[in-house]
Amino acid sequence: MKQVVLKHKLDAAPKASDFMIMNADMPDCPDGGVLVKVKFVSIDPYVGHQLSKGHMASPPPKPKTDVIPGGIVGEVVESQSKKVKKGDFIHSMDGGWVEYLALHEDQFMKIDPRAAPLSAYVGVLGMPGLTAWSGVTQLARVREGDVFAVNAAAGPVGGTAGQIARMKGARTVIGIAGGATKCQLVEETYGFDRCVDYKSDSWQADYKAAAPDGVSVHYENVGSDQLSFAMQNLQLYGRVVLCGLAAHYHESDPAMTMIGPIVGKRAVVSGLVVYDFYSRWEEFRSEMAPWVKSGDIKFVEDRISGLENAGTLMEKLMNGRNVGKCVVAL
Amino acid sequence: MKQVVLKHKLDAAPKASDFMIMNADMPDCPDGGVLVKVKFVSIDPYVGHQLSKGHMASPPPKPKTDVIPGGIVGEVVESQSKKVKKGDFIHSMDGGWVEYLALHEDQFMKIDPRAAPLSAYVGVLGMPGLTAWSGVTQLARVREGDVFAVNAAAGPVGGTAGQIARMKGARTVIGIAGGATKCQLVEETYGFDRCVDYKSDSWQADYKAAAPDGVSVHYENVGSDQLSFAMQNLQLYGRVVLCGLAAHYHESDPAMTMIGPIVGKRAVVSGLVVYDFYSRWEEFRSEMAPWVKSGDIKFVEDRISGLENAGTLMEKLMNGRNVGKCVVAL
Repeated sequence: MKQVVLKHKLDAAPKASDFMIMNADMPDCPDGGVLVKVKFVSIDPYVGHQLSKGHMASPPPKPKTDVIPGGIVGEVVESQSKKVKKGDFIHSMDGGWVEYLALHEDQFMKIDPRAAPLSAYVGVLGMPGLTAWSGVTQLARVREGDVFAVNAAAGPVGGTAGQIARMKGARTVIGIAGGATKCQLVEETYGFDRCVDYKSDSWQADYKAAAPDGVSVHYENVGSDQLSFAMQNLQLYGRVVLCGLAAHYHESDPAMTMIGPIVGKRAVVSGLVVYDFYSRWEEFRSEMAPWVKSGDIKFVEDRISGLENAGTLMEKLMNGRNVGKCVVAL
Repeated sequence: MKQVVLKHKLDAAPKASDFMIMNADMPDCPDGGVLVKVKFVSIDPYVGHQLSKGHMASPPPKPKTDVIPGGIVGEVVESQSKKVKKGDFIHSMDGGWVEYLALHEDQFMKIDPRAAPLSAYVGVLGMPGLTAWSGVTQLARVREGDVFAVNAAAGPVGGTAGQIARMKGARTVIGIAGGATKCQLVEETYGFDRCVDYKSDSWQADYKAAAPDGVSVHYENVGSDQLSFAMQNLQLYGRVVLCGLAAHYHESDPAMTMIGPIVGKRAVVSGLVVYDFYSRWEEFRSEMAPWVKSGDIKFVEDRISGLENAGTLMEKLMNGRNVGKCVVAL
């Protein structure tokens, strides 16, 4: 079977040419576990970060041996678990860029292929969706009348966060994204009230025009100037979810932000790590899947076929040229 | 009667030579209000900030006309209010550096001179105490087992915050202060477990030795490197109260801090402005006054006599050479 590995140690954001494909032995089905044929591999920013710097407790994968990590959707080809039988579909956060995967019983969840398209389980119903849902409903507790803003709004976390905020009663939903194509997606497909293009010279004025009385909830995926600007435009008692700091992932200087407004606005700033919400997968999916099925919440994929092209999609994601959730179909 | 004004507009922290004393007409007792003889004037860092830069909604006082603002304790010399009679004592946040003051009924609270020494009502039972109490009990909600740290720990906010945290069950209480005299006060009088001298080269190592497993609640009065360091030493799910940013008050660059740890630690950072808790004066004083009377909570004053010396005490405070709450006795 095929798997993707790094050619060498990275010291910057990964490019397509940093990866190579190699053959490996098919794994055996573990006692009590499953053997899975991978159908979709999720390509995520946190993996890009991990490949060069490591991520939380995980060091970067070793070149030429360690499989590149990533969430997957797969079909069970052999089962020694009572949770699933052959032909069932599963989602796992312990997957990677491989054709076949052996998983222990605590490493996967059964998913329902009739409730939503399979690939949605690594996107709007997967980790990016859980990240958006946790920040909006559990940390910021968005409610009727909130003015909600989120950056990287064309991405699967930001785009989903804004739509969930709308479902929870937000009066105004504002996105920030880079470029006209992304802003069009955010406004026309995701249905935000306004998407501000931060590559435009007028983006700060555009943002203020969209939220003349300030923002009551800001969901941060970027950091840098965008965060300091957001802090200054909070309403009194504003809530800020600090989720991603993508602008800083491949910098050596630590990410910094303005703190005066946190005091002046009596803001509450909460750090979000999605791992904390892994006990809530079922609750999250039971709320989200009907919204996805009804079309209340939309998602967009930047899809490529074939493991050998996974690196190309990762490079595109690292350069911010993707539109929608990056996913590799096998 | 005498009052203190600025000689000129300030563009830096106030010095003793920036103030002058002048004569003014005695005010009349307002309808429904009181005329008060000032007994104690509070000298606070926020006033120092206001004198050069303005503060929140208030511009700096105009030189040679506007009285320097400050909390006061006074004795009622004439009353047209049903709240108090002649000879009663009151606390007001709308006072200033003057001998006599006219106050409307909503500008003062009656205080009990038997419950605590009068000057405590501008200190441990005044705004600094309310600031400490609000952050510890209402925002951070310190509870049994917390590891609590606070900087500017020799000051009336920091020193009181640590003692309230102890009363609320904190397992370890750590202070940060500048110099051996202040650290001795914090450990020996306020009874903190440890006070780290940030002027020592080893302060970061000393802090880590005092809290080897990190801090669950950090109460910030300073900003700058001390805050970034505290962020890095939080426990998972740590709570941070952002109260004062004294290191930045007279700087033109905005205060910045490291944000990566907020995400990584899943911290919650809350901005505190004590005005929000002015509706809680009675609740605060009814909890604190018995602790002060019993000696469970200690306070220390840096006291000077005579309005003409108020500027000298302000300069001492601005230079961080004060030890304890700065108060002028008239």
